Amino acid sequence: MQPINFAQKLELVNGHFQPKIIAELNGQHVKLVRALGEFVWHSHADEDEAFVVLRGWFRMEFRDRSEVVKEGEMIVVPRGIEHRPVAEEEVCLMLFEPVSTLNTGDAGGERTVVPDWI
Amino acid sequence: MQPINFAQKLELVNGHFQPKIIAELNGQHVKLVRALGEFVWHSHADEDEAFVVLRGWFRMEFRDRSEVVKEGEMIVVPRGIEHRPVAEEEVCLMLFEPVSTLNTGDAGGERTVVPDWI
Repeated sequence: MQPINFAQKLELVNGHFQPKIIAELNGQHVKLVRALGEFVWHSHADEDEAFVVLRGWFRMEFRDRSEVVKEGEMIVVPRGIEHRPVAEEEVCLMLFEPVSTLNTGDAGGERTVVPDWI
Repeated sequence: MQPINFAQKLELVNGHFQPKIIAELNGQHVKLVRALGEFVWHSHADEDEAFVVLRGWFRMEFRDRSEVVKEGEMIVVPRGIEHRPVAEEEVCLMLFEPVSTLNTGDAGGERTVVPDWI
């Protein structure tokens, strides 16, 4: 029950597409992640995901379109929807998603990470 | 699946301690609220709550201490913990909490509101 400072926590987030956990509530994790470049196409069968932009901007690609999401904005990707985050410049994101959520969803592969707490 | 802009949504949030819903995922709501002054002491038996400061700052009072939470910070209040948000100046907050959550928790009373979507 202490304040969590995003800027301070972001200093502990290294690499790209490697989320770290900063809080847990109601079976959900709040995570921070830095993203740069293209991630893998994937979906989550049972998990909706919220992406909140803390710094920068990115493009959320869907199979039929894409959305630019900027600082001060969020986007929700419902379960089952294929998506791919693409960041032309480094973007800092906060994620809200169930504890069970893996970053690569159904795609798996070498970019899958089990997030640590910071 | 479109970006949600917090500043634009905040223009639709009137009054104080009257949360509005901007997103739903995994049985949780994301809400925006403006706060000013002292709210009522309350707790939530079955719901953890996250408070993210978008603008300004506020003090989260607990029975034995309080925490100042500033822009760019969040605080999680676990279920069962009595708390009271106090804002000496207007603060704009994003809340992340279960769909079932009422703003006044177990306290009820005239400041209870059923939030609308904006």
